Amino acid sequence: MSDDLKHLESFIHTLADASGAAIMPYFRTRLDVDNKLSDGKFDPVTEGDRAGERAIRALIDSQHPDHGILGEEYGLKDGTSSISWVIDPIDGTRVFMSGLPTWGTLIGAMQDTVPVVGVMDQPYTGERFFGGPSGAKLITRDGEQAMKCRSCETLGNAVLGATDPRMFAQSPDKEVFRTLSDSVKLLRYGGDCYNYAMVALGQMDLVVEAHNQAYDILPLVPIVEAAGGIVTDWAGRPLRSGADFDRSKGKMIAAGDKRIHQAAVEILSPAA
Amino acid sequence: MSDDLKHLESFIHTLADASGAAIMPYFRTRLDVDNKLSDGKFDPVTEGDRAGERAIRALIDSQHPDHGILGEEYGLKDGTSSISWVIDPIDGTRVFMSGLPTWGTLIGAMQDTVPVVGVMDQPYTGERFFGGPSGAKLITRDGEQAMKCRSCETLGNAVLGATDPRMFAQSPDKEVFRTLSDSVKLLRYGGDCYNYAMVALGQMDLVVEAHNQAYDILPLVPIVEAAGGIVTDWAGRPLRSGADFDRSKGKMIAAGDKRIHQAAVEILSPAA
Repeated sequence: MSDDLKHLESFIHTLADASGAAIMPYFRTRLDVDNKLSDGKFDPVTEGDRAGERAIRALIDSQHPDHGILGEEYGLKDGTSSISWVIDPIDGTRVFMSGLPTWGTLIGAMQDTVPVVGVMDQPYTGERFFGGPSGAKLITRDGEQAMKCRSCETLGNAVLGATDPRMFAQSPDKEVFRTLSDSVKLLRYGGDCYNYAMVALGQMDLVVEAHNQAYDILPLVPIVEAAGGIVTDWAGRPLRSGADFDRSKGKMIAAGDKRIHQAAVEILSPAA
Repeated sequence: MSDDLKHLESFIHTLADASGAAIMPYFRTRLDVDNKLSDGKFDPVTEGDRAGERAIRALIDSQHPDHGILGEEYGLKDGTSSISWVIDPIDGTRVFMSGLPTWGTLIGAMQDTVPVVGVMDQPYTGERFFGGPSGAKLITRDGEQAMKCRSCETLGNAVLGATDPRMFAQSPDKEVFRTLSDSVKLLRYGGDCYNYAMVALGQMDLVVEAHNQAYDILPLVPIVEAAGGIVTDWAGRPLRSGADFDRSKGKMIAAGDKRIHQAAVEILSPAA
């Protein structure tokens, strides 16, 4: 591993520490639901989202002003380095707004267009899921453990996660997702970024999503891959940032075992 | 509050401590998914479920042999006291099997048929949601805080949780649930018992479920009610144990504000 990558693996924890500290004051605050958003528009983006991204951007800007940044809240900042960052300060905004502890802060480092180091941080539970050239690990208040995907040869044995059935409301997504979900042992709705972390931890076998943005998924790729899994679009193509991301149409598959990944691609690719 | 109720409020923590210790060794264990359940039958009940319930039952049997017990795993034990217990050692077995920390241990004390003290315990996050005659509180590793539902006057401002859309697959449940979910600000799938706890904590406004068993819901009633909310069946009838439970058909509404509860009953009651 190069010194640059070693540094990224260390620096990403600094970023996650800062975002967690910035976001947590906003988690489970009490809202006056009757009087807010009086224009009737629902916008799940919280102040916490923005505070988290500002904290991350400030550190990158000060320590690596040449790095590019793509964040959910504050958009794209072009850089001059081959390294850039992809940030979703609160993935799972609906979960965050509901008070549940299964949202996550996603931070990913890209080398050119390839995701190389990633973190999913859950500051309330104190869980940080990390992946990079040095491996995949779960860091908690009690210590850290290596993460490894579990084997799962056939869809009939697979635990599948998908955040929301409304992602697949349109044809042909609806039909191919139904075929897939009818083939697995267990389908569970909900989860957001947590589902990908659970694939890395060997607790789930498959995640299928649609309508993802680059910042929703690219930081998770190194976590799943360093644990031995695979993340692609529905056509089975690897995920890259920039223009390459667009051809995925935001449709993702993550699998802990390449055999069920292949089986899922066969079912989903007609709608890729 | 009577000495009996005071004792129940204390004893229920002893039960939750014991169940958490019994269940945690089974959480996030690695399963060999390829070789288990070779008969093809999917059964989400884990050893943790059974270990948790055995731990709770052993304490009740030794300290209060006259109390009745209804548990998910080991069924009904009739008692001679007016006090009985309702137990779901792992509510959210799909969530537990997926490795996510949003399952809960539900323990409820009934006086005759009325739920009077309840706990939802999440031993991984260290959260315990409690409700009884002394009030509602969330106990964490950092201390405890009183819980209070938030006000929410209209469905258009409400955050609604429902564990799984497949609960409402049949008519007329499907149609009335769609009418309700089209009326709210936000619908989120997933959550299980956590949704009820989030109503008590003032983070969500409404939970609607179907296919509940008595042990899925009765322990949660004192938590929501002590926080100022209301839990009924779809017809708006209060929840009681025993034969009274059957008329609910397992269809539940929990709300933090009685105004949106009434609005939800008006929509759902034709399918009650």
